[in-house]
Amino acid sequence: MSQQAAKQEAVSACRTQIESQLEKLRTLATEQAAPAAIKPEVALLQSITDQLAELSVAPKKGSSKITLKTPKGTRDWDPLSMALRKHVFSTIERVFAKHGAVTIDTPVFELKEILAGKYGEDSKLIYDLQDQGGELCSLRYDLTVPFARFVAMNPTEYGSIKRYHIAKVYRRDQPAMTKGRFREFYQCDFDIAGTYDAMVPDAECLCVVTEALDALGIEGFTIKVNHRKILDAIFAICGVPEDKIRTISSAVDKLDKSPWDEVRREMVEDKGLDGAVADKIGTYVQRHGGRDLLAQLQQDAELTQNARATEGLADMELLFQYLDVYQIMDRISFDLSLARGLDYYTGLIYEVVTAASAPPGFGANAALAPAAAPKPKQKKDGEEEIDESAVGVGSIAAGGRYDNLVGMFSGSKKPDAVPCVGVSVGVERVFSILMQRIRDAQARGERTAVRQKEVEVFVMSMGDGLLLERMQVCKMLWDSGIKAEFLYKKKPKLQAQFAVVDKEQIPFAVMLAPGEWAQGTVRVKQQLGKEESGNDKGEEVPLKDLCSYLLQKRA
Amino acid sequence: MSQQAAKQEAVSACRTQIESQLEKLRTLATEQAAPAAIKPEVALLQSITDQLAELSVAPKKGSSKITLKTPKGTRDWDPLSMALRKHVFSTIERVFAKHGAVTIDTPVFELKEILAGKYGEDSKLIYDLQDQGGELCSLRYDLTVPFARFVAMNPTEYGSIKRYHIAKVYRRDQPAMTKGRFREFYQCDFDIAGTYDAMVPDAECLCVVTEALDALGIEGFTIKVNHRKILDAIFAICGVPEDKIRTISSAVDKLDKSPWDEVRREMVEDKGLDGAVADKIGTYVQRHGGRDLLAQLQQDAELTQNARATEGLADMELLFQYLDVYQIMDRISFDLSLARGLDYYTGLIYEVVTAASAPPGFGANAALAPAAAPKPKQKKDGEEEIDESAVGVGSIAAGGRYDNLVGMFSGSKKPDAVPCVGVSVGVERVFSILMQRIRDAQARGERTAVRQKEVEVFVMSMGDGLLLERMQVCKMLWDSGIKAEFLYKKKPKLQAQFAVVDKEQIPFAVMLAPGEWAQGTVRVKQQLGKEESGNDKGEEVPLKDLCSYLLQKRA
Repeated sequence: MSQQAAKQEAVSACRTQIESQLEKLRTLATEQAAPAAIKPEVALLQSITDQLAELSVAPKKGSSKITLKTPKGTRDWDPLSMALRKHVFSTIERVFAKHGAVTIDTPVFELKEILAGKYGEDSKLIYDLQDQGGELCSLRYDLTVPFARFVAMNPTEYGSIKRYHIAKVYRRDQPAMTKGRFREFYQCDFDIAGTYDAMVPDAECLCVVTEALDALGIEGFTIKVNHRKILDAIFAICGVPEDKIRTISSAVDKLDKSPWDEVRREMVEDKGLDGAVADKIGTYVQRHGGRDLLAQLQQDAELTQNARATEGLADMELLFQYLDVYQIMDRISFDLSLARGLDYYTGLIYEVVTAASAPPGFGANAALAPAAAPKPKQKKDGEEEIDESAVGVGSIAAGGRYDNLVGMFSGSKKPDAVPCVGVSVGVERVFSILMQRIRDAQARGERTAVRQKEVEVFVMSMGDGLLLERMQVCKMLWDSGIKAEFLYKKKPKLQAQFAVVDKEQIPFAVMLAPGEWAQGTVRVKQQLGKEESGNDKGEEVPLKDLCSYLLQKRA
Repeated sequence: MSQQAAKQEAVSACRTQIESQLEKLRTLATEQAAPAAIKPEVALLQSITDQLAELSVAPKKGSSKITLKTPKGTRDWDPLSMALRKHVFSTIERVFAKHGAVTIDTPVFELKEILAGKYGEDSKLIYDLQDQGGELCSLRYDLTVPFARFVAMNPTEYGSIKRYHIAKVYRRDQPAMTKGRFREFYQCDFDIAGTYDAMVPDAECLCVVTEALDALGIEGFTIKVNHRKILDAIFAICGVPEDKIRTISSAVDKLDKSPWDEVRREMVEDKGLDGAVADKIGTYVQRHGGRDLLAQLQQDAELTQNARATEGLADMELLFQYLDVYQIMDRISFDLSLARGLDYYTGLIYEVVTAASAPPGFGANAALAPAAAPKPKQKKDGEEEIDESAVGVGSIAAGGRYDNLVGMFSGSKKPDAVPCVGVSVGVERVFSILMQRIRDAQARGERTAVRQKEVEVFVMSMGDGLLLERMQVCKMLWDSGIKAEFLYKKKPKLQAQFAVVDKEQIPFAVMLAPGEWAQGTVRVKQQLGKEESGNDKGEEVPLKDLCSYLLQKRA
């Protein structure tokens, strides 16, 4: 049978299978069968359809029809970006380790059920893997849920742990890459799990994020803080029905980008809240400040009669005391509009915003001046329109306390058996800020601290190729731990070799010439900048002393 | 409307949609519509079914029904494994950088079509993302194809590049985790792209992998080398039909695990090769050696009349010359049975095997003594049975030359416009080997070089809690770059604090006592082991001198 005939046969077999599979599904649908019975049949239908589609593709090898790009919302990291990324990560790691954190890693995908019910309205942004038989999995959406799963799996060893985790997470969000919002992006998380005295670990998380951003040279950031218990108490005393609390909470969270009128309209018109209730909420959530605001709330008769509010206010009192010792109270804005979208927070919540994205006059005691509302966005690519606040455009770090998440996994009778608090640094915006600085420096012709390539020595031939000899010299250098390269040509041109040295700014050139080589010597030239090295022929060094000569010179 | 009623309504809406979607599909199937028209409708059916399934799940928060595990074939990295991983990666990175490589990164998933047609029989192991609307994507299967895609996208800047890439790749393989075979695992790749003189970059790749494994302390490994052109020539002169070359090639590749009789049987019975052809192949592919084998082949009249063989043999001649200069010929076994499964190799191919997995007596000139055939495996989880040779159990590194892969992407008229060669270190087996050494050392009570936690100072209270004071001291230490911790309790017990110092082997304890604190001093005790520190009360140090005192002590 010819290949063509075999293929034709496979195609028609597929079509028959599809028809019978559709018949089976129709029966199941008519019988109102359980979804669990329908799902695998649909998966089977899909795999047959995929097979059919593959058979129908003409096998054109080397076809240029391929779209040469990375998937939407993702990007490559070129050598310069990678050098910067390594610098940023090692800076952040140093801070995390200084506070005694160990590090862990988890798989890039988790069982789908592990992620279910953790992210509120954002759950629709989770990437699923295709059902190819076996378990259903999803790409991790953050590092917090995998961490809680890890702790729940290892309660004895890691029921009390301070860990950091730097890794990629995935969100099927509407990308805005110029703003640093990607579908694949890094998070740098620092979390403390374990039963400790109130607000002590929480305060350290804020201290850690401040040190990390300071170490990266990020200036003028503000840490907005709020407390879920205070917020819930406010909603309760204002008369928000229990089942509307989360949705009203997400509306409030938009106050950093939309004016109060717009948020009020959403509450009343879209979410069916009573106008008077909304107005009362407005008297609270438009306030922010520092100790002054805390003092006002502590005087609020209605609020202080609510048990949850009292707990929240006591926490804030302690927190401010600790942050004073850590000397970061001047970075703090106690902001009653901060709500955070995720389901799992139970106590203190916080978000770090950069000056650039903060409204004018923003600061610990300034009057609230909301930025203009964002422009309405167009639907594109048949994907859902995503609200900008979902990821937090101006935010460069965020986190909070989540005391029940580990308990949700371990099924412990005590839901807060392993209370946790943590902070996540969203480094993409940090990268953007720092990359701009590097490009500015390069434009001014300055050398930057971040080097892509670390080669110290270029081994070159001054005539006759001397390929084996250049290899031999490189081998000597490599064995001594010296970073060295040569041109992979049998007879490289002199100019081509010097071009590499100049372009890569390699500090030393080792030059091999047939005559000197015969006498056991090579010539070493240190590149000190164009003026000085112009007519310098370099120093003659016996081959046997070359490594020690260079090791001494570079020291 | 009650929540229950709303849900009921949503469920019945879903069921109606499913029925109408099935109707639509039946029409398409009857009309024999193009797969491209059917696929999106099936995807839509699937998303409705998913919705139905989600609606049918009872919203039990905190339910303990969740399976607490990582997905099949994946694992968590605990703090000790992470410390080892960091050690391994930095060791390998140092070698790569020594040879002048820069580093890049690519997204964890690529457009599906980028990966299509690159992996031969192994394509079935690719993980696909679910079609959630938008582009079809797959998790990367290796780092080579993404690298070629990156170079093809940036031909001017990176048409000539030496880069390394350390990242996770994904294969839906049958996991054998005790053997270090995972579905999510790391590869450490070093590749050289660009037009250079023959075998010079190839030889450096072998030099690099040797240096990396030596630096990691891996002993007794062998580098098997072969050449695709020689292998293809052998198949041609033995009379293998053109369209059977790849499948016969994979059969030959199994000779490292199966005896010749078994491989011959597969060729003849399963793949329909003529018995005489198989026997003639057997006279070649059972041979391995070093220069001696090369010399024999150079004398082979039939082989040397084949143009491809001549090219391959000339390459090997050059390679051996260069490897002599790099002093690694003693690691090399020229092995005619090495075929490598992937489609994209065009020239030299190689695989590094550890002594443990090599057959007894294995070595550059020893007689071939194949290991026993692997036990037949059971099907599990409804997934396909995977041949063990697909991933190469005994192999810890592999690679080769792939001159046409970039051209496949760029659609260039010259398919080898950007020739490449590279090597990939499979670190999972390296981790297993090194982790075993650490556990052995721990069992002997020895301290290991790999530390999980780097804390230098533990700040403790000798009475009265002194929480704010301990915070203040830690803040001073952190500001000086000293790694410090304290217990997150208001009034920690003395014993609990000493327990941390002992368990974590923290070098310094800074002790705060109310009386001394009032006079501006603290006590510093260096932990030197149990005997010495037993009755030592430590040294009294003025608080203002504490940082400089500790910085000096640790130096």
